[in-house]
Amino acid sequence: MKAARLHSYDEDHLHVDEVPEPTIQGPNEVIVRIGGAGLCRTDLHIIEGVWRGTLDPELPHVVGHENAGWVEEVGSAVSTVAPGDAVIVHPLKTCGVCLGCRRGEDMYCANGEFPGLAVAGGMANYLRTVERSLIKLAGNLEPKEVAPLADAGLTAHRVAKKAARILPPGSTCAIIGVGGLGHIALQSLRALSPTDILAIDLIEDHRKLAEQLGADQVVEGGDGVVDRVKEKTGGRGVDAVIDFVGEHGTTQQGPAMLVQGGTYFVVGYGGSVDVPALTYIFNEVSTVGTLVGSYTDLVELMELAARDKVKLHMQEYGIDDVNQAIDDLYAGKVQGRAVIVP
Amino acid sequence: MKAARLHSYDEDHLHVDEVPEPTIQGPNEVIVRIGGAGLCRTDLHIIEGVWRGTLDPELPHVVGHENAGWVEEVGSAVSTVAPGDAVIVHPLKTCGVCLGCRRGEDMYCANGEFPGLAVAGGMANYLRTVERSLIKLAGNLEPKEVAPLADAGLTAHRVAKKAARILPPGSTCAIIGVGGLGHIALQSLRALSPTDILAIDLIEDHRKLAEQLGADQVVEGGDGVVDRVKEKTGGRGVDAVIDFVGEHGTTQQGPAMLVQGGTYFVVGYGGSVDVPALTYIFNEVSTVGTLVGSYTDLVELMELAARDKVKLHMQEYGIDDVNQAIDDLYAGKVQGRAVIVP
Amino acid sequence: MKAARLHSYDEDHLHVDEVPEPTIQGPNEVIVRIGGAGLCRTDLHIIEGVWRGTLDPELPHVVGHENAGWVEEVGSAVSTVAPGDAVIVHPLKTCGVCLGCRRGEDMYCANGEFPGLAVAGGMANYLRTVERSLIKLAGNLEPKEVAPLADAGLTAHRVAKKAARILPPGSTCAIIGVGGLGHIALQSLRALSPTDILAIDLIEDHRKLAEQLGADQVVEGGDGVVDRVKEKTGGRGVDAVIDFVGEHGTTQQGPAMLVQGGTYFVVGYGGSVDVPALTYIFNEVSTVGTLVGSYTDLVELMELAARDKVKLHMQEYGIDDVNQAIDDLYAGKVQGRAVIVP
Amino acid sequence: MKAARLHSYDEDHLHVDEVPEPTIQGPNEVIVRIGGAGLCRTDLHIIEGVWRGTLDPELPHVVGHENAGWVEEVGSAVSTVAPGDAVIVHPLKTCGVCLGCRRGEDMYCANGEFPGLAVAGGMANYLRTVERSLIKLAGNLEPKEVAPLADAGLTAHRVAKKAARILPPGSTCAIIGVGGLGHIALQSLRALSPTDILAIDLIEDHRKLAEQLGADQVVEGGDGVVDRVKEKTGGRGVDAVIDFVGEHGTTQQGPAMLVQGGTYFVVGYGGSVDVPALTYIFNEVSTVGTLVGSYTDLVELMELAARDKVKLHMQEYGIDDVNQAIDDLYAGKVQGRAVIVP
Repeated sequence: MKAARLHSYDEDHLHVDEVPEPTIQGPNEVIVRIGGAGLCRTDLHIIEGVWRGTLDPELPHVVGHENAGWVEEVGSAVSTVAPGDAVIVHPLKTCGVCLGCRRGEDMYCANGEFPGLAVAGGMANYLRTVERSLIKLAGNLEPKEVAPLADAGLTAHRVAKKAARILPPGSTCAIIGVGGLGHIALQSLRALSPTDILAIDLIEDHRKLAEQLGADQVVEGGDGVVDRVKEKTGGRGVDAVIDFVGEHGTTQQGPAMLVQGGTYFVVGYGGSVDVPALTYIFNEVSTVGTLVGSYTDLVELMELAARDKVKLHMQEYGIDDVNQAIDDLYAGKVQGRAVIVP
Repeated sequence: MKAARLHSYDEDHLHVDEVPEPTIQGPNEVIVRIGGAGLCRTDLHIIEGVWRGTLDPELPHVVGHENAGWVEEVGSAVSTVAPGDAVIVHPLKTCGVCLGCRRGEDMYCANGEFPGLAVAGGMANYLRTVERSLIKLAGNLEPKEVAPLADAGLTAHRVAKKAARILPPGSTCAIIGVGGLGHIALQSLRALSPTDILAIDLIEDHRKLAEQLGADQVVEGGDGVVDRVKEKTGGRGVDAVIDFVGEHGTTQQGPAMLVQGGTYFVVGYGGSVDVPALTYIFNEVSTVGTLVGSYTDLVELMELAARDKVKLHMQEYGIDDVNQAIDDLYAGKVQGRAVIVP
Repeated sequence: MKAARLHSYDEDHLHVDEVPEPTIQGPNEVIVRIGGAGLCRTDLHIIEGVWRGTLDPELPHVVGHENAGWVEEVGSAVSTVAPGDAVIVHPLKTCGVCLGCRRGEDMYCANGEFPGLAVAGGMANYLRTVERSLIKLAGNLEPKEVAPLADAGLTAHRVAKKAARILPPGSTCAIIGVGGLGHIALQSLRALSPTDILAIDLIEDHRKLAEQLGADQVVEGGDGVVDRVKEKTGGRGVDAVIDFVGEHGTTQQGPAMLVQGGTYFVVGYGGSVDVPALTYIFNEVSTVGTLVGSYTDLVELMELAARDKVKLHMQEYGIDDVNQAIDDLYAGKVQGRAVIVP
Repeated sequence: MKAARLHSYDEDHLHVDEVPEPTIQGPNEVIVRIGGAGLCRTDLHIIEGVWRGTLDPELPHVVGHENAGWVEEVGSAVSTVAPGDAVIVHPLKTCGVCLGCRRGEDMYCANGEFPGLAVAGGMANYLRTVERSLIKLAGNLEPKEVAPLADAGLTAHRVAKKAARILPPGSTCAIIGVGGLGHIALQSLRALSPTDILAIDLIEDHRKLAEQLGADQVVEGGDGVVDRVKEKTGGRGVDAVIDFVGEHGTTQQGPAMLVQGGTYFVVGYGGSVDVPALTYIFNEVSTVGTLVGSYTDLVELMELAARDKVKLHMQEYGIDDVNQAIDDLYAGKVQGRAVIVP
């Protein structure tokens, strides 16, 4: 089969190689025929060697951690999916028996394995995964149209869900960055809460997209954004901030926009969240991190997608054009998310 | 009546002056005869001029924001307390009609006034306050024995209550600093949750007190404390940290002790909480500020005190000895909390 | 001024009398010029004498407990509203100092008074109430258009809010009865949750309205409704039921529609909820009562109304036509809610 | 091996038979050498044929659904337990892949199997179960001393945990029935909440035990109990009731003891909970069912047991004396719970 693989950290692109198809090796395993694999900024970081010390997959390494497709073959103990089923693949292979898994917190699995990051991923014709990672798709959803929901979308939904719990009618939530994750979070939050959504982005097209997707107000990002947000909210500030940028000043701006009792949700990274203890106390604010999402978070997101309440903007590439997709992503030319279709 | 007053920010002590007694000026007001007024580090900061620009009370200023005593006189609209009732005084005078008050979040009152900080406090024979600030004491509680629960205790209880919600059996909570607030928080947390309490303090006497009050483990604070905590928890770390120090390195140490999904509650201040966005995300941790507490938080704390589940360690001074109390507090000679009894 | 009053329980109608205007009698009181007063089934019950032993207002009695209008005059201690402000009136006059009030649970006020039920209500030119009962209207809302939200709408919103907390994407909520309360609850739930809403009503017009307001499915009520609901949900049943009927069999049907772990919210009354203990246990279901709503619940509902997310269907009557409105309500001729405009 | 088996619903006792030892039949299975198997009223009901139509196990049937012991042998895919480990056995064998399991709600497993009820149980030398059902015991816990915690204790803990969430300091919780489940719930609630516990029982010895275990007040059950509870609580009533009887009038008494906003938790069964809709609404009360407990509930309970915060009162019988144990249980002669030790 064809697979997009990283050969060396000294190169800035992938190779599309002919490799053997994966085979079932355990009773709970499943082979998925890939319908689409999302290309993510994390893939660029892998190629750049950013994760070299941390994840260190064996080279050549098949990338692709946002996968959807059809079940091809199942292990002897698999009971909930069958060949032919259209599925999306939760990004972590989890054990199901550690305490994290038993609590429903898949990302805290003590024995998790991350295809596409640490082991072979889905930017290929077939992926080897486990039954526990699979969610069957509703009849109206195409694998390639939802693949990036497996990771980018899941992260966006989990944080939107956390935020929605503290956002009653009359509250305001700022979303910083209406890109790949932000445009999903906006839709998910719209579905989960009647809060006023104030979308912040440096790019005008992103702000326009935000308005189309249901943002109540849009604000230009960058210098002076805190003042602009205060002005838009009658001097009050916002009850929650979801920051999908996490660098270039947003980690200072985000906490500074909050009302007393507010919460800053940080999802993007690069910067540091440096807030005096006295500010945390006087304003009684919180900073909350968020890490991808659980299997049941993804189940919920797919229910939203099946009802058309969350819709991904995507751009399709053949697997042979994977390096073109990478170049386009670097160049900011991708509309929404790039999806590789093998 | 006698009142302990600050005359000038150029002095390092208070004056005990003869001043007119306060009188009822509105229908909801109440005059409280003071049974005890706690002396707090914040009082030292007021004398030092730390709050000069922020609070700026008119000088001479009567200090004392941790008050308890007996109702002396009530305004025409007061219905829930009567002369002779023993009461503790919530530290903030609140309006009862703003949205913060209506939600039960007294500290978010849009029109609050802070006796002892911004207007005349309770280190005197009498205090003018409002009905909304008063909680009747159970028959077995003496005003002077509970006065510091009004602010120090309330802050400790609120954070213990927040923490208890995420601390099931088998979890561990670290308390950094077992002083005036910490020793209350420890008892409150012990009453609210079966979590394993790991008390951290630089001072051996404080660690001994922690053990007497029900800490499951004690650890010496300072350099290397993160390693010591990890060792005590089998390498795992703790599910929550409550930091009553908030400076001298604890704002780095606290977040570093957390397990994945853990929460760092910051109460002490002075330092800054500087954590990379990536750490918030990878560990899915949170930093949560906490600000004194609501009226109903104080009601709950007094219920614990009435059942002997929270007991304050206090040292009594006459009002004429207020400067001795101040000197003792600076010198670290106060056992528990100093209470001025007029 | 004019007022619609009940003279005797032996009559079946009200009298429109000329009576003295109410006057301010305490510092926290407010006189409201009525813009609209909702007519409610509870008013019919008052006229019928159903509440005679329980509420027993002095006769002649001014009815009207769903009021909105403009502030006419304020007491000396009132600070948050001023003459001319358009307001809606929370149905209970609360004390603000009991523990129920301090927790933000207005309906649990130990000293509450119910205008229109126990004391003079708002079906008149003017109403005497208290500052604590008033919420200022957004500029785009007319008093007469929102008056019934004060009680019927508030009850509907509170239960929708309780239900929304347990209704993630992919869940289903049945609403039994899409009348005055139900059509508000449907809109409120639509705003608060992406759950699938299944509306049940005996009347086809009500089912059509439900579809227009965003119900995902509609089902005819009455005999066999449990089977019809099971069929619509693939045999599964629903995660929550909100029952606005509470008699004529719905208290049996509601619990019987639930999935394991589901909740039956009961709002309508007349019948009894009789469920074997074994059923509660095996299915791990709950029955939850709900009582009008708090001030902050009403604040939230008005935020939804201001954003057009909740819209009341109303039919206007002059005060001289109040008995016509009563007749129409008995005859089932009122579209949505009847509002008396003095 | 020896096994206590039901041969026929026409007999009133079990047979201790020599039967083949169970063997591993799937990769996730585990054979447990039984250290203790609790004897439960449900076992009596099985013998009596009460469950005949519902569960209908193949006869002869090995009973025993409250099991603890040591791992004897493990299937090929088992990774978290090893031969020799002391373990307690969650009563349900769950699939781990259905949505109930993925949410951490084991009792909602779509494919669960109940050893001792529907398939062969643990009143024998060996039990066949699955890895997902096993929790390793802390070093200070003996299997036979904790076996009844697997089901009776788990049910008690789950309901205590639900109740604790709504029981702040100053609240009161009534426990009806301080028998096998009640005496565990009392200890669990004591560990989880500082609420005032009011224990109700017909039997004086049970009331004495309740006091020893930390009940704040005890009240004699039966006729007039509602008045007695009101009297003990100053006319107020209780915030929550946990009813372990569920018949003989307690399903009327329980709801009648509640304060406004209170919750009636029903665990025992036999009776019906028949409450007018109007009562649910006027008092805004709830009835909440509870079904055994999840794996993580049992993990928490074992943490409490390991810290001596929950201690089971048990009486030991050899497997050959199983019918003596049954007779003693019928005769009310068992102190705490009977445990069969093979």
